Amino acid sequence: MTVEELNSFFKEAFPGGDGEGCPVRFADGRRAVVAHRFAASQLRPGGTISGPTMMGLADMAMYALVLSAIGKVPLAVTTNLSINFLRKPEPADLVAEARMLKLGKALAVGDVTIRSEGSEAIVAHAVVTYSIPRRP
Amino acid sequence: MTVEELNSFFKEAFPGGDGEGCPVRFADGRRAVVAHRFAASQLRPGGTISGPTMMGLADMAMYALVLSAIGKVPLAVTTNLSINFLRKPEPADLVAEARMLKLGKALAVGDVTIRSEGSEAIVAHAVVTYSIPRRP
Amino acid sequence: MTVEELNSFFKEAFPGGDGEGCPVRFADGRRAVVAHRFAASQLRPGGTISGPTMMGLADMAMYALVLSAIGKVPLAVTTNLSINFLRKPEPADLVAEARMLKLGKALAVGDVTIRSEGSEAIVAHAVVTYSIPRRP
Amino acid sequence: MTVEELNSFFKEAFPGGDGEGCPVRFADGRRAVVAHRFAASQLRPGGTISGPTMMGLADMAMYALVLSAIGKVPLAVTTNLSINFLRKPEPADLVAEARMLKLGKALAVGDVTIRSEGSEAIVAHAVVTYSIPRRP
Repeated sequence: MTVEELNSFFKEAFPGGDGEGCPVRFADGRRAVVAHRFAASQLRPGGTISGPTMMGLADMAMYALVLSAIGKVPLAVTTNLSINFLRKPEPADLVAEARMLKLGKALAVGDVTIRSEGSEAIVAHAVVTYSIPRRP
Repeated sequence: MTVEELNSFFKEAFPGGDGEGCPVRFADGRRAVVAHRFAASQLRPGGTISGPTMMGLADMAMYALVLSAIGKVPLAVTTNLSINFLRKPEPADLVAEARMLKLGKALAVGDVTIRSEGSEAIVAHAVVTYSIPRRP
Repeated sequence: MTVEELNSFFKEAFPGGDGEGCPVRFADGRRAVVAHRFAASQLRPGGTISGPTMMGLADMAMYALVLSAIGKVPLAVTTNLSINFLRKPEPADLVAEARMLKLGKALAVGDVTIRSEGSEAIVAHAVVTYSIPRRP
Repeated sequence: MTVEELNSFFKEAFPGGDGEGCPVRFADGRRAVVAHRFAASQLRPGGTISGPTMMGLADMAMYALVLSAIGKVPLAVTTNLSINFLRKPEPADLVAEARMLKLGKALAVGDVTIRSEGSEAIVAHAVVTYSIPRRP
């Protein structure tokens, strides 16, 4: 799937959520870049962006990467997600970059690096495995 | 913190979210049980409850467990969360049971088992590490 | 496979290593208990048992559990292992208890709790995924 | 610590094991490269290098990276290691590249990519956390 197709698909699949606003910036089957717009409602005590927000972003970045590699297979599902929260993110937009480590027939494994927009410091790092349903 | 104190704290800390509706059922510093009310809006393609919903529940169950053990330390933060999604959950309430594996001065580690309400089958299993800020 | 069959198989498959000495104490497809005999040569600086020793033990306990569930399928392989080292183990024998979280057709997921022999304190906790080759 | 100092330290700390033979090729506090010499004795059924061998290599690569960043602090210990085994490695030397994701006062987090010598394909990918003891 192309960036345009991914953004249309996410808008439809996740209405009212992170699918709005064209989050996918890049995706070529080996790498994908997905943004998360900052919303004050997701702040946690201490002024930090919530963990589930970052977990959802990591998951979506890997989903975009997988679909850009194998085409529109909506029933690809996450089987494992492991995330380290490394620094308190600024109250700002986040950018996630997913990298394919292995694309097999049954499983895709990648890692996702999350930074605040415009910053080099890594806010969170995740490794995500998707299970790919067998195709006829 | 007691179950009542935890439910009050969560209601305040996460208004409009999973903190509503007294999610904490049990917490004694070694084990905690936290429920998630099913909401059709969290369904994913395929009729399944979304991964981020379950990650948020695992995180909250461990947070409740940590606070029941060390008292009201809101700035305790997740440093690592690793989750396996094992079965497609029913469109039903979820119940998460957190168990303390280690409570140290600086880190608390526990695992969280998520089931559909009334079912024995494990829907997801997470291991969560919280960092505990040094107290004066 | 039964406990006796597992111990014979491990002795053959890992000569000179942890397969010697009947490490498997119990295995019924849902739970397995595997021991590790203490050897001074595996000590690390600080008098602690090395991490790789415990990782190998966690892996072997899950392998025993999987084979006790599905029979002699030697090519079942680990795809993911995530371990938390929780306490410095005594220079003593270790006992690992593996519990099946999900046994599917293609993947088996379990967790493994490692203690020093005779102690209740958890030394390490791992979650291990095995990939099961398709059978004809 | 420099590459030379690391190789001397490993030789002393792990006699007869992976510390022999100058495994550290590069280390500058941000990145480290550590090699593992192939030994037929570590082969598993199916002709593959054993999982514990790769887990030990990932752990050692991160240890070298941490010590190259903070100096000789032998009691730095692994608290978490999560590894995905992605491809069956050739019966050949392995090369592990560790990258620092976060170096804090109490914790260091990095990821480690393992390849067969001379190959681009990733054989295993690990994320490793070290706890750094407080210094006086």
